Amino acid sequence: MESDLYNDPAIMGGCSVPIKVNRKTKLEPTIVNVGGIRIGTREVIVIAGPCAIESHDQLLESAKAVKQSGGKILRGGAFKPRTSPYNFQGLGEEGLKMLQAVSRETELPVVTEVMDTRQVEVVSEYADILQVGSRNMHNYPLLKEVGMQKKPVLLKRGMMATIEEYLLAAEYILNQGNEQVILCERGIRTFETTTRNTLDLSAVPMLKHLTHLPVIVDPSHGTGHRWMVPSLSRAAVAVGADGLIMEVHYKPEDALCDGHQSLSPNEFADTMANLKKVAHAVGREM
Amino acid sequence: MESDLYNDPAIMGGCSVPIKVNRKTKLEPTIVNVGGIRIGTREVIVIAGPCAIESHDQLLESAKAVKQSGGKILRGGAFKPRTSPYNFQGLGEEGLKMLQAVSRETELPVVTEVMDTRQVEVVSEYADILQVGSRNMHNYPLLKEVGMQKKPVLLKRGMMATIEEYLLAAEYILNQGNEQVILCERGIRTFETTTRNTLDLSAVPMLKHLTHLPVIVDPSHGTGHRWMVPSLSRAAVAVGADGLIMEVHYKPEDALCDGHQSLSPNEFADTMANLKKVAHAVGREM
Amino acid sequence: MESDLYNDPAIMGGCSVPIKVNRKTKLEPTIVNVGGIRIGTREVIVIAGPCAIESHDQLLESAKAVKQSGGKILRGGAFKPRTSPYNFQGLGEEGLKMLQAVSRETELPVVTEVMDTRQVEVVSEYADILQVGSRNMHNYPLLKEVGMQKKPVLLKRGMMATIEEYLLAAEYILNQGNEQVILCERGIRTFETTTRNTLDLSAVPMLKHLTHLPVIVDPSHGTGHRWMVPSLSRAAVAVGADGLIMEVHYKPEDALCDGHQSLSPNEFADTMANLKKVAHAVGREM
Amino acid sequence: MESDLYNDPAIMGGCSVPIKVNRKTKLEPTIVNVGGIRIGTREVIVIAGPCAIESHDQLLESAKAVKQSGGKILRGGAFKPRTSPYNFQGLGEEGLKMLQAVSRETELPVVTEVMDTRQVEVVSEYADILQVGSRNMHNYPLLKEVGMQKKPVLLKRGMMATIEEYLLAAEYILNQGNEQVILCERGIRTFETTTRNTLDLSAVPMLKHLTHLPVIVDPSHGTGHRWMVPSLSRAAVAVGADGLIMEVHYKPEDALCDGHQSLSPNEFADTMANLKKVAHAVGREM
Repeated sequence: MESDLYNDPAIMGGCSVPIKVNRKTKLEPTIVNVGGIRIGTREVIVIAGPCAIESHDQLLESAKAVKQSGGKILRGGAFKPRTSPYNFQGLGEEGLKMLQAVSRETELPVVTEVMDTRQVEVVSEYADILQVGSRNMHNYPLLKEVGMQKKPVLLKRGMMATIEEYLLAAEYILNQGNEQVILCERGIRTFETTTRNTLDLSAVPMLKHLTHLPVIVDPSHGTGHRWMVPSLSRAAVAVGADGLIMEVHYKPEDALCDGHQSLSPNEFADTMANLKKVAHAVGREM
Repeated sequence: MESDLYNDPAIMGGCSVPIKVNRKTKLEPTIVNVGGIRIGTREVIVIAGPCAIESHDQLLESAKAVKQSGGKILRGGAFKPRTSPYNFQGLGEEGLKMLQAVSRETELPVVTEVMDTRQVEVVSEYADILQVGSRNMHNYPLLKEVGMQKKPVLLKRGMMATIEEYLLAAEYILNQGNEQVILCERGIRTFETTTRNTLDLSAVPMLKHLTHLPVIVDPSHGTGHRWMVPSLSRAAVAVGADGLIMEVHYKPEDALCDGHQSLSPNEFADTMANLKKVAHAVGREM
Repeated sequence: MESDLYNDPAIMGGCSVPIKVNRKTKLEPTIVNVGGIRIGTREVIVIAGPCAIESHDQLLESAKAVKQSGGKILRGGAFKPRTSPYNFQGLGEEGLKMLQAVSRETELPVVTEVMDTRQVEVVSEYADILQVGSRNMHNYPLLKEVGMQKKPVLLKRGMMATIEEYLLAAEYILNQGNEQVILCERGIRTFETTTRNTLDLSAVPMLKHLTHLPVIVDPSHGTGHRWMVPSLSRAAVAVGADGLIMEVHYKPEDALCDGHQSLSPNEFADTMANLKKVAHAVGREM
Repeated sequence: MESDLYNDPAIMGGCSVPIKVNRKTKLEPTIVNVGGIRIGTREVIVIAGPCAIESHDQLLESAKAVKQSGGKILRGGAFKPRTSPYNFQGLGEEGLKMLQAVSRETELPVVTEVMDTRQVEVVSEYADILQVGSRNMHNYPLLKEVGMQKKPVLLKRGMMATIEEYLLAAEYILNQGNEQVILCERGIRTFETTTRNTLDLSAVPMLKHLTHLPVIVDPSHGTGHRWMVPSLSRAAVAVGADGLIMEVHYKPEDALCDGHQSLSPNEFADTMANLKKVAHAVGREM
């Protein structure tokens, strides 16, 4: 059914898809390889960990919980884009060192955010995947810089970016020679206020329709509520996401940021068990 | 996990939940009974049929396809709210008669839209469920009028309505004495244009968290693209919807309205088969 | 400059303008005549009064303040579309009678909202202009019904209606034979929350560019803050509005609804004095 | 009237205003001084020039037109944030040199955009005002970097930024010691598509209510249509803006970017003449 409509421009709502990310240019899906973990196959990959790296112990305990329940990649922020200059801004390079140490102890590859072109080199030394956050999706110098690295990039959708702008942002990276790009729907800004953002799950099939890049979903930022993460995770897998990125903290109530949307180790374990059933129901592995 | 957070006002984003629809007022979920079909139980109920009633044959053939694949209730519009006065406005009462006839032939209960307080009485004679459409969610005289009927009401979320406004609209109906209300997420208006609306699947767990009323999802209007209906349907079931309402037309390419978002009988059959797997994966029946 | 671009479809952002409201169909601007008050000329017309009619005295005192400062038409709601069923719903026909009485005492024509097709006849007996509110802009039976009346219609823009949908709603009225339609920008729903709505002043030149109908602005609902009404009123006149509709209450602190966005008599007098200067600066009369 | 409401938290719609930009912290308005041109006084200051610097002649001819009609500061982009990597990206440092040369020839101070922390130093050598564009309003490393410069900063509102986020972005700059910040409303993203963005003129009085920083308006990006710039400029002055920034190109039809929203020299001259009348009507100078 999809293939019939693929050439109908009407389905794109006026969206023009640039050449390098376009599924018509490269028919087979791109698989992003992170130290043997492959994103974009039949297997649903879960990335999880705390919002911010706070200490070696906090990160290690959280990472163990992630690994134990089947998470394949560890997330943790060292440079944090915070709305207020008075909020915790992250541990910086010290945090990166903790991330690398925990990565080695747990044998989990790690993803962490880079916010500044001047940080790309140092973050690349420590991280397995470079994350460009929602607030920087339109930061073209940063996109070009990560496009020149030999590392996979996790490019989050801007909170108010159209599908077309998002694909063009990815094109900036591919255009520099880096094709290892993971897209991530993380909620868009709308008039609704009961959730932090409005998770746009339609974006998953739409992106997979238009591009060959893998697409994952962030239900933690997408909803802003810990208790909604399990159900929206299931929906993300059911709709066809290639993976998930979730906030998991070994003690959410003590987290320096985003505790209200972070799962505890037990909640994460339950969530993963339920996700597997949905993955199998839609013909995916996990 | 949900129960712990249930009393935390922060989860509602400032949303105040009125008393009659409030889950705290009535702890057990409301089950809407439509001629023996019960909405709001463990069983996922699918409502399907054409956007508009065009002829007896069109409706009958579509209805047979709906029934054959497991649809439990037939939808079909006789009074159509069309953005342009020059578009097909529906067959009116003649359409209602066809709807009733096909209902009897197929033994499917029927839902159809009522747009005008003056039509409520006549529509109630023919329909098993009265639908209040998205454009009329803020039409308070109409809400009061359907609140005075002895028929279940399918109240679609306004395309511009917050969760709070939506619950208050339902409260208008309950406040008149009619507690048989089904809520329906059908996509909200955002800046994104590749989809007709942005289907807000977070609204499903949020509504079920705040109210005892059953919640279904309309992926046809939510996406506006036939090829997206199967994947978003799966996501809707995975996120916890009590049912779905889908556009099915025996010949979508000939439909007088919404053909581009209507499933053919074969597509509907495939969709239903896949939905059952997801329903079972999340502990539901279908 | 405008005329050069008038035929460029790109300026309409894909908006198609239906035939009866289209400025190309009828080159001279439509002037709506309300008992000798003409809307759509070089004169800027101010409509003002309380949100809701509460009592004869409240309405009379407010009306006198309106008239004294140069307001030409009195507004006041008898049927109120309230988000909650538990809020004050208006005095109904009793309010209409007060409105008519005050209209006679002050010799001000009156505008009041009609929400229900069944009310159109009775409201038409008392009102000089029928208002269709923002929540009913998509209520097509109501649009058709007011289109069959011999009274001018004030059609407010839906809070989430595109320019195209708005013009099509007006077309529903003209299509029934009633060409006396006044458009009104009153704020649209966006992600911004410091104001009640986002007043879209660009809509004024855009509408005047596309249609021959007069366009007024409602800065009271558009901002939701009394203290912002004077500055946004000035902007509305500067941008080219043919009039304004403002909430004025003789005692805003005692108002049963919208007191926080209603001007006191003194504030209204100041506002009018300043508006005249702006009107003259842009070649309008007042 | 404003002062009465100033302490009412309700007027801010839940917006918390950080300390350094807060009008309660510093009661007198901040005046930004750019080589003798003072922004934030009774005088309305107009910044104008081409979207992108294309050549010395293009810039010089445009600058002469700006100066002749009363523009006080020249704008022109050397580093351009373009949605597509295949669009013209600007002349870079070569463009900055042209900008400086034309600045000297015309004695107009200049503002130009900086997109990358690594460019801040070089742009500071050539520009009188550093512009942080809409897409970089959430780019916190860049905000910190311009906060460490001794140059005024023109901080445009993000197309998706709430008033609160915008004030917090400005706070990042002030917090580094640079208080010479000009705010600029340039249109927000909404569902409406006939205009490029929705110019939020309510933001002007709201910002001036909450902060001591000067506020200007960009009607060119705000509307995306050349023919709308004159009327929205008038509205911006009427609503209380301290200045305007407009795109002016000596040959808009040949512009490499944004020609459709750039005024020609004659259109700019007309616009300025009309703006003066509005400025005087609201007690401002120009």
